[in-house]
Amino acid sequence: MENESTKKWGFQVHQRFKTESAITLRAALTSLTENIDQNDSRPTIPLGHGDPSVFPSFRTANVVEDAIIDAVRSTKFNCYVPFFGILPARRAVADYLNRDLPYTLSPDDVYLTLGCKQAITVILSVLLRPGANILLPRPGWPYYETFTRQNNVEARLFDLLPEKGWEVDLDAVEALADKNTVAMVIINPGNPCGNVFTYQHLQKIAETARKLRIMVISDEVYDHLTFGNTPYVRMGVFGSTVPVITLGSISKRWIVPGWRLGWLVTCDPNGILQKSGVGFSLHLALNLSIDDICHVCCRNPEIYAPNFTCQVVDSIKEYINITSNPAATLIQGAVPQILEKTEEAFYSKIIDILRVAADICYNRIKEIPCIYCLNKPEGSMFVMVKLNPSLLEDINDDMEFCLKLAKEESVIVLPGIVVGMNNWLRITFAVEPSALEDGLGRIKAFYYRHAKK
Amino acid sequence: MENESTKKWGFQVHQRFKTESAITLRAALTSLTENIDQNDSRPTIPLGHGDPSVFPSFRTANVVEDAIIDAVRSTKFNCYVPFFGILPARRAVADYLNRDLPYTLSPDDVYLTLGCKQAITVILSVLLRPGANILLPRPGWPYYETFTRQNNVEARLFDLLPEKGWEVDLDAVEALADKNTVAMVIINPGNPCGNVFTYQHLQKIAETARKLRIMVISDEVYDHLTFGNTPYVRMGVFGSTVPVITLGSISKRWIVPGWRLGWLVTCDPNGILQKSGVGFSLHLALNLSIDDICHVCCRNPEIYAPNFTCQVVDSIKEYINITSNPAATLIQGAVPQILEKTEEAFYSKIIDILRVAADICYNRIKEIPCIYCLNKPEGSMFVMVKLNPSLLEDINDDMEFCLKLAKEESVIVLPGIVVGMNNWLRITFAVEPSALEDGLGRIKAFYYRHAKK
Repeated sequence: MENESTKKWGFQVHQRFKTESAITLRAALTSLTENIDQNDSRPTIPLGHGDPSVFPSFRTANVVEDAIIDAVRSTKFNCYVPFFGILPARRAVADYLNRDLPYTLSPDDVYLTLGCKQAITVILSVLLRPGANILLPRPGWPYYETFTRQNNVEARLFDLLPEKGWEVDLDAVEALADKNTVAMVIINPGNPCGNVFTYQHLQKIAETARKLRIMVISDEVYDHLTFGNTPYVRMGVFGSTVPVITLGSISKRWIVPGWRLGWLVTCDPNGILQKSGVGFSLHLALNLSIDDICHVCCRNPEIYAPNFTCQVVDSIKEYINITSNPAATLIQGAVPQILEKTEEAFYSKIIDILRVAADICYNRIKEIPCIYCLNKPEGSMFVMVKLNPSLLEDINDDMEFCLKLAKEESVIVLPGIVVGMNNWLRITFAVEPSALEDGLGRIKAFYYRHAKK
Repeated sequence: MENESTKKWGFQVHQRFKTESAITLRAALTSLTENIDQNDSRPTIPLGHGDPSVFPSFRTANVVEDAIIDAVRSTKFNCYVPFFGILPARRAVADYLNRDLPYTLSPDDVYLTLGCKQAITVILSVLLRPGANILLPRPGWPYYETFTRQNNVEARLFDLLPEKGWEVDLDAVEALADKNTVAMVIINPGNPCGNVFTYQHLQKIAETARKLRIMVISDEVYDHLTFGNTPYVRMGVFGSTVPVITLGSISKRWIVPGWRLGWLVTCDPNGILQKSGVGFSLHLALNLSIDDICHVCCRNPEIYAPNFTCQVVDSIKEYINITSNPAATLIQGAVPQILEKTEEAFYSKIIDILRVAADICYNRIKEIPCIYCLNKPEGSMFVMVKLNPSLLEDINDDMEFCLKLAKEESVIVLPGIVVGMNNWLRITFAVEPSALEDGLGRIKAFYYRHAKK
């Protein structure tokens, strides 16, 4: 017994990852929030992240709340369901996208996910074999790069060009791609830039990707949140030119990011993904009802299914961890009503608020000499502004700007370094307009306090 | 252009896992379901899995439905929240467990997860370093073994002893453990055995684990679903003897498995997990608000937090993928009301139905000579019965029994091989009693048709 009490316990923490990781977006926001002066009696103004759901103006539609209530009262959505999602919800997502496409998706093209984030995880996991590389936009949403690097795959960054309204530098795309490039990612409407790609630019992206024989992963989590002159066009419109994987969710347009309901959709009318095995593998990645047959088959191939090959089984196994949890059945059950019944008036109201907010943001920024907005935002919830530290007495970069701003003014904005752009800032305008005015006013005061004399 | 159309697309499926995998539970069930004769006009009787939510008798409590409705109407639970869960829900889980414990858990001991399954994933990921091994029960829930093997860690199986009411073979546990053993897993109430461990047996488990310097992971997903003579005791009662990780969820007791809300709780009043780094690492695994500070710190350690070490950051990185999605905020928001307000009458009603169902099951099985039930179930939703193929003309094992039973009688039961026991069957009795009678009647008819003459 005397030995027992001094003997070391057998468990310890497993440390597997040794690679350097990028700053995550939440990392930066948390760090900034921690930096706020607790003695500041003013409310904190959160211009750092894309979640306006806490503001009264951005309350989701009644029909969305009713959809949940109908789902819970029906008692039909308490059960386990297939990991790729229930048919009515997949059909509703297909129909929703079909409104904007020149061909018809079927529910089988749709995989429900835990928010758009799991959709990213799934498609990257399917594609990122060792030795592969993927082309990502700079600035972009950091999770793409973080996940890619954590899986020891090369992320090659192409620039979005501020002087061209944040269009893709397609020459750079061509220069970066090689035979091991599997895909390029675009985010449209743009996060962090607030831009919206034109039909013509999307067409050029499609033609470039086709030439390079890579697919396009189109992150459309901010779909239809556009309020400028450029009409919203889905990348999937060019699915006949190049296979497109469309990612989306109910998080942003319906302002319920905490509900974790997203989708991954293969927009590929020519069936290229199926032929290359990607479509099938995606199906397997999210569909344990096929996956599991294969497991059984694998043990008894001669009895149960001689035609299943080990390749298929191998590709399943990788995804079991990722796919071990579907979106909550209850929320899946509400999806058809959410996508089909939301009134145009709700969509318009939100667009109108965002347009006003973007205007406030653009105009107030003009009054602050150290930051500069090249492009008035036309979509999403963000604007990228260039920081000029040379106008400031005691601030050397975007991170320092944001840390001091948080401390002195209780205003959170995101340092551009987090989205890949040193000495830029990402400002969210999707907050209550009065809070936005307040926050930008504080940034102005902050500037004048730190301006070089 | 002529070259372009024949040129191979750059993407292909990534195949990473080459290791053999066990049959998963869903695999087997899907395979069996596929085997059902579509021309059989009788309803399929699902005695294979633990989800009675589709049966009217097992409708969840009104208060549970109301909790969701209150959460959605409050508009407070649409937003992003910390990955380890919101405080009111974690406090409610702590209070819920505290009713059964001789010490007081705090909300900081509780981590919300995507069902109990993600809780398993998280704790195994934290513990399973290369070269480690873990002790798992046989029979058991297959995901433990699947996940362990997929991570190239050794699973060592100890038997549950049918002749001792499915108690743990503690001699085997002692013989299997070595200096690289990190933990042993118990499932109580038992899946697949329907047993309930006594206070005395749990105490012996705790003492054995303490002697071996390993922690106990106690899967209590069927907590309080007991209806026999053995009172339900939580393993955490012995948290002062040995550190206990308690896993649970609202899936089973409240019959909403599709809602994906579970928990992982450190029951460790002596703080051993904290000292060994496991507690902290768990916190980090699920808590990006600390995790992310570390990311920032790591890049600028001299500025932001010199005391954070790289070890901590390393242990975070591993978990970002796993933990990139929390349970839906909406359902987290309903947790306090669900755990605090559910009436005793609901719990009793479900227990009464399960008791009746277990009796039906036990008695009907006696009428079927080829299967034998050593222990009347006292908890969970399952019973393990031994199959004697020597009494059957043309059936050689449990898998063949189940496949033919599905085909000929549209009754699904789980082959024991899936839970680690060749020539046993796991039968779920948590179905509508009339369906249970029907299903067991069909198994009886099936037996007499295949019995040796």
